[in-house]
Amino acid sequence: MTAYKDLSKDELKALKKELTRKFEEVKAKGLKLDMSRGKPSTEQLNLSMGMMDVLTSSSDLVCEEGVDCRNYGVLDGIREAKQLLADMMEVPKDNIVIFGNSSLNVMYDTVARSMIHGVMGSTPWCKLDKVKFLCPVPGYDRHFAITEHFGIEMINVPMTPTGPDMDMIEKLVSSDPAIKGIWCVPKYSNPQGITYSDETVHRFAKLNPAAEDFRIYWDNAYGIHHLYEDKQDYLIEILMECKKEGHPDMVYKFSSTSKISFPGSGIAAIAASDANLAEIREQMKIQTIGHDKLNQLRHARYFKNIHGMVEHMKKHAASMRPKFDTVLASLEKELGGLEIGSWLAPRGGYFISFDSLDGCAKAIVAKAKEAGLIMTNAGATYPYGKDPHDSNIRIAPSYPTLDEIKRAMEVFTLSVKLVSVEKLLAQVK
Amino acid sequence: MTAYKDLSKDELKALKKELTRKFEEVKAKGLKLDMSRGKPSTEQLNLSMGMMDVLTSSSDLVCEEGVDCRNYGVLDGIREAKQLLADMMEVPKDNIVIFGNSSLNVMYDTVARSMIHGVMGSTPWCKLDKVKFLCPVPGYDRHFAITEHFGIEMINVPMTPTGPDMDMIEKLVSSDPAIKGIWCVPKYSNPQGITYSDETVHRFAKLNPAAEDFRIYWDNAYGIHHLYEDKQDYLIEILMECKKEGHPDMVYKFSSTSKISFPGSGIAAIAASDANLAEIREQMKIQTIGHDKLNQLRHARYFKNIHGMVEHMKKHAASMRPKFDTVLASLEKELGGLEIGSWLAPRGGYFISFDSLDGCAKAIVAKAKEAGLIMTNAGATYPYGKDPHDSNIRIAPSYPTLDEIKRAMEVFTLSVKLVSVEKLLAQVK
Repeated sequence: MTAYKDLSKDELKALKKELTRKFEEVKAKGLKLDMSRGKPSTEQLNLSMGMMDVLTSSSDLVCEEGVDCRNYGVLDGIREAKQLLADMMEVPKDNIVIFGNSSLNVMYDTVARSMIHGVMGSTPWCKLDKVKFLCPVPGYDRHFAITEHFGIEMINVPMTPTGPDMDMIEKLVSSDPAIKGIWCVPKYSNPQGITYSDETVHRFAKLNPAAEDFRIYWDNAYGIHHLYEDKQDYLIEILMECKKEGHPDMVYKFSSTSKISFPGSGIAAIAASDANLAEIREQMKIQTIGHDKLNQLRHARYFKNIHGMVEHMKKHAASMRPKFDTVLASLEKELGGLEIGSWLAPRGGYFISFDSLDGCAKAIVAKAKEAGLIMTNAGATYPYGKDPHDSNIRIAPSYPTLDEIKRAMEVFTLSVKLVSVEKLLAQVK
Repeated sequence: MTAYKDLSKDELKALKKELTRKFEEVKAKGLKLDMSRGKPSTEQLNLSMGMMDVLTSSSDLVCEEGVDCRNYGVLDGIREAKQLLADMMEVPKDNIVIFGNSSLNVMYDTVARSMIHGVMGSTPWCKLDKVKFLCPVPGYDRHFAITEHFGIEMINVPMTPTGPDMDMIEKLVSSDPAIKGIWCVPKYSNPQGITYSDETVHRFAKLNPAAEDFRIYWDNAYGIHHLYEDKQDYLIEILMECKKEGHPDMVYKFSSTSKISFPGSGIAAIAASDANLAEIREQMKIQTIGHDKLNQLRHARYFKNIHGMVEHMKKHAASMRPKFDTVLASLEKELGGLEIGSWLAPRGGYFISFDSLDGCAKAIVAKAKEAGLIMTNAGATYPYGKDPHDSNIRIAPSYPTLDEIKRAMEVFTLSVKLVSVEKLLAQVK
């Protein structure tokens, strides 16, 4: 393979002609493909169908603490659900509070509470002139949407293969008291699939924030979402590390079963220090009488324990693995050596992140759309939807079938090539 | 029956002695009774057990709009759930948004949104020096807890047999721009069981608030929770009335199936104007990817339609009616004519409200507790827990069995008598 940058103007012109012809052929097929969201496939949903039969009219619906799960009572989660999610999140059962179906909602509520009531006695953020969050980029668009919604200024922090740039984080967090938080997806990150290294986690736990109400928003969305049995990332547990470093209150950890059981009908949880949870419960008891305990019971009885959940995740992995492998093989085969894009091969999570030549991402996504393939909007992985290099594109291979992915990747790689050639042609004299 | 106030000092003394003897007898039984919360009984929970069998692993889990309810998608509720709750709330299907399991949570979020983002472009309440809510009293403690939590000043408005004092409300709302809302339980109110009269609803719809962001918080928690088939209250639908009066945006209406299906595992909704709902959806799409659609589908398929729900509520009524009748009969038999308390006979809802002689409620609740009966805290029905007359006590007969209610009412009426005699004795020379 010759790198595109080493081609002459005439060669690029010829290549463009050839790629355009191929693109028109593909476009003529009138495809309708979607690789835009991290949505489980129907095959994956079917894996949890047993859950629909766990609770029936002849079931005993009393939970371990003796409460009838059909009635009011138990504010912060039934014991068996706490145990299951605590094991999933690798924290003690007493450091967890169970919520409704959405961890995003828990994160939203956490920011909202800080805005209105402050954090453990600090000034409510809505009374401050300026509140800032650090945002490792590329990252998760829905995180950025929350902070933007609350008028919080977002500062980009570049990701590296071991996690976000810790030098930059340490410097900013220790010097600017307006910085109140940082969004992290520490394992199989969205969209790159990077897991923070041991050193990164240690440096997080050792942060000395200028703001007493600074918190790490640790969204461990893909904690047990491995792709391979033999190649798995390990992430150091952050609550314990923060405790060891004398900063037990510095982190909120979020997770849910949305991509384990059913998206939208799972259960979410927050894990944090005793002091943080005491404050959270104070709000919670005003906000609700309690979350859906029948669904908590359904989850606890279906998975039985963390081992059951881990075994269940192997089935998800078996369904996801060939999809990821197909995307990676296609990228390698079609784009390898051309030096018009780069990507990482993640060991888990829901995404593959692709970086095009600078200034090409928007055009590539538009091109793919022309041929019937919907990708996540270019820029979505950055705060305010603004990718300064216009280069990052998130590939979400979970929902389509293997066959659809093959066709989608044909469109995608063709779009990358065509836009790259056009870009290079515009640059040569 | 001679009214206690007409008894001589000696007669009161003799009566006190006799009541004290009886009270000690009852106390010696070591009872453990609870009439404190509006919690459905086990018998009532059993009425909905069929709901546990509606969705199984062999069910088609695709909703009317063709979405797989197991997956992400559909932000504001599936069509069939919207139709069911719209009929329940007597509003068009398009004027409803479905939430999670708790209408209290929806109300909390509504206030929180107004605090941080304001209401349809108005100044966020957290930026104002003073925000006030009107609180018809006696009322629902959890409403007052929300406004207190957000530092909103609460102003008591006395209830009358036709609803809150509308003269006072009209005067306050039209003159004070700091008044941003009013908490209403318009049908079978908590705790008095009063339904707002036609005139009251019309006057609500005709309010001319000084604050453009004033909203009526219309918590129609007991809209179809009748006790009798032949005696039912009718409440005029407020959304339509406000629309007719040219104030379509002035009301948020809340409801849930918590006391229809399962408390904690029901579905909640808000009904409001298009403009209000557009703003609510703007927030909602930041806050969550969507609520539990499987539970929405479970409800829609179980009840089938509003007729199914109405028929279902007759079973609840059959279970509740004898309990209410027992409480009322006991009050009449033990306290009738004594002029030491008054009460209303509601036609629906979850409570009977008792008013003792001024300054006796706390002592009565404490006395009852001495003999093993837990009542709702005296004062709970007022903002800040402060009943200015110390006279209102909420009786919640739903949870105990009929037999327990009989014993509970013996303790309660005895406590009322004893405390009243002591009060009168302290007053006579």
